[in-house]
Amino acid sequence: MSNLIDIPAVAGFLKNCEDAYILIHINPDGDCIGSGYSLQAVLKLLGKRSKVICADPIPERFHFLLPEEPEEDFPAKYIISVDCADETRFGELEETYAGKVQLCVDHHISNRYYAENLYVEPDASSACEVLYKIYRELGVKFTPQIAKCLYTGMATDTGCFKFSCTGADTHLFVSELMREFPEIRYDLINRAMFDVKSPSRIRAEMIMLSQMEYHLDGKCTLIWETKAICEENHINPKDTEGLTSLPLQPDGVEVGITLREQDDDWYRISLRSTDRVNVSEICERFGGGGHVRAAGCKLQGKPEQIREILLNAVAEALAS
Amino acid sequence: MSNLIDIPAVAGFLKNCEDAYILIHINPDGDCIGSGYSLQAVLKLLGKRSKVICADPIPERFHFLLPEEPEEDFPAKYIISVDCADETRFGELEETYAGKVQLCVDHHISNRYYAENLYVEPDASSACEVLYKIYRELGVKFTPQIAKCLYTGMATDTGCFKFSCTGADTHLFVSELMREFPEIRYDLINRAMFDVKSPSRIRAEMIMLSQMEYHLDGKCTLIWETKAICEENHINPKDTEGLTSLPLQPDGVEVGITLREQDDDWYRISLRSTDRVNVSEICERFGGGGHVRAAGCKLQGKPEQIREILLNAVAEALAS
Repeated sequence: MSNLIDIPAVAGFLKNCEDAYILIHINPDGDCIGSGYSLQAVLKLLGKRSKVICADPIPERFHFLLPEEPEEDFPAKYIISVDCADETRFGELEETYAGKVQLCVDHHISNRYYAENLYVEPDASSACEVLYKIYRELGVKFTPQIAKCLYTGMATDTGCFKFSCTGADTHLFVSELMREFPEIRYDLINRAMFDVKSPSRIRAEMIMLSQMEYHLDGKCTLIWETKAICEENHINPKDTEGLTSLPLQPDGVEVGITLREQDDDWYRISLRSTDRVNVSEICERFGGGGHVRAAGCKLQGKPEQIREILLNAVAEALAS
Repeated sequence: MSNLIDIPAVAGFLKNCEDAYILIHINPDGDCIGSGYSLQAVLKLLGKRSKVICADPIPERFHFLLPEEPEEDFPAKYIISVDCADETRFGELEETYAGKVQLCVDHHISNRYYAENLYVEPDASSACEVLYKIYRELGVKFTPQIAKCLYTGMATDTGCFKFSCTGADTHLFVSELMREFPEIRYDLINRAMFDVKSPSRIRAEMIMLSQMEYHLDGKCTLIWETKAICEENHINPKDTEGLTSLPLQPDGVEVGITLREQDDDWYRISLRSTDRVNVSEICERFGGGGHVRAAGCKLQGKPEQIREILLNAVAEALAS
């Protein structure tokens, strides 16, 4: 059980943490990368050495957020995690760091209270939105890199300010970043994050859309990304991250499910909800979690079994 | 030539205008509809009667912005236009109202100064962003309907805060609206505006993407929406508004062109630019106009002629 601390206490912690490792989650996205690297930059402004560690490599399209100087190597005195709801999110670094995190800053309602000290805001759009307030408390002067990190985190976790997690604070903080750094090309960040698609991604979208299944009177849609579909159509599974919003396109859909085939009949499953259904609750029943309108879990089995299990859970949620 | 007035003068005008007709443009979009109906609601708060007039019907997905009471009928004492860069944008109402507009509020750099009094902010994201400031100057207390109108206008004209026209003010004003009206489901507005697609629209996207042409070393993409393609694939041309961002998806594209076939070999053409090219300049050469990164024009001719004319213009712009 974590010690729940407030923003001034987080700021106090950061002022005193020498040689920190900042853990971000596997399959790193704009929010955890923006969180990790902005925190590293802020700690540097405070005269502290730190480095971001991740079990997976940082995808190339996020490399513009990385510091220019190469990272120093040093042993960790402090372990911080950002945007990680539980320790399984550390991937293969779990073994090394489980039970050792001294500070976690997060925005997931499903946070498992694994860190010694925790600051979590389930209503915040993103970990970057939470960190924005912490950095303001610290009174550091933002650099363009910090601004780009924070912007990217808030933009990506909100689907470019589209989702229900977007709040008055999200827009206010972005407004302040834009006022302070008008020269940053936010539109080009957005283009890279949301619009640019590889030919393989464009093919993937066309195929997934054409094979989308409609269930429960059109209230639940389902798309499969099987190994066979990917091979047949020369689709690189790396190009299909974020396809999870695709099944929400048809009018009337309440829950959209994306299933990505892994090894040994395992499936990585993403659930998205447009309005009424709490998909985090559904995913928690299967050992996963996330947010009310965007959550995920893993299931092993035959496609027809998994489909039935999920549709039953969604039907139940729709009926209640 | 217009009398260029400032925000207090616009506010003064509105305080004194009885029985106004508010003209919005043909093919009405979220910004002109949000502008028109928010202005009507604000004038009502000032005790003034007004009505929104448009040559085309308001599409159903914008009906949530309309006032609940039926519109009164009365003769116009004042004519106002919002979000209309020139009088041809009135469509078949041009004949009746050309030369008669006493106040125009706009954000198009291509505004033709046709109104007696003009307030134009080419740097504003949307006419709704401009009107937001005017309403604050008037000091009226916003209603939820006004907030929804202003939000929808700013969100739709910026592609949900994605495009370069999005500014610090855009985010600030949205933040203020969200703070004042937290109960409004902005996420559902966004879903209706950006995500929900009819089956015909989903088919249209798949077909346009699969038939996209790559020109000028992949720097210019082109999609055709011909009558034949629409008929063959049961695509309703009403469902293809906004497809104009589709050709910008491939990495490396600088200009994306969408051509929609009209009657008698006429084509409605939309140009979108990712960065360097000013497409408003290109479209102005063909009698059209718009914004630096989003503009349109009409051309008549055979497809191969039109393609050549446009590609030459884009190649020239890329070279300069």
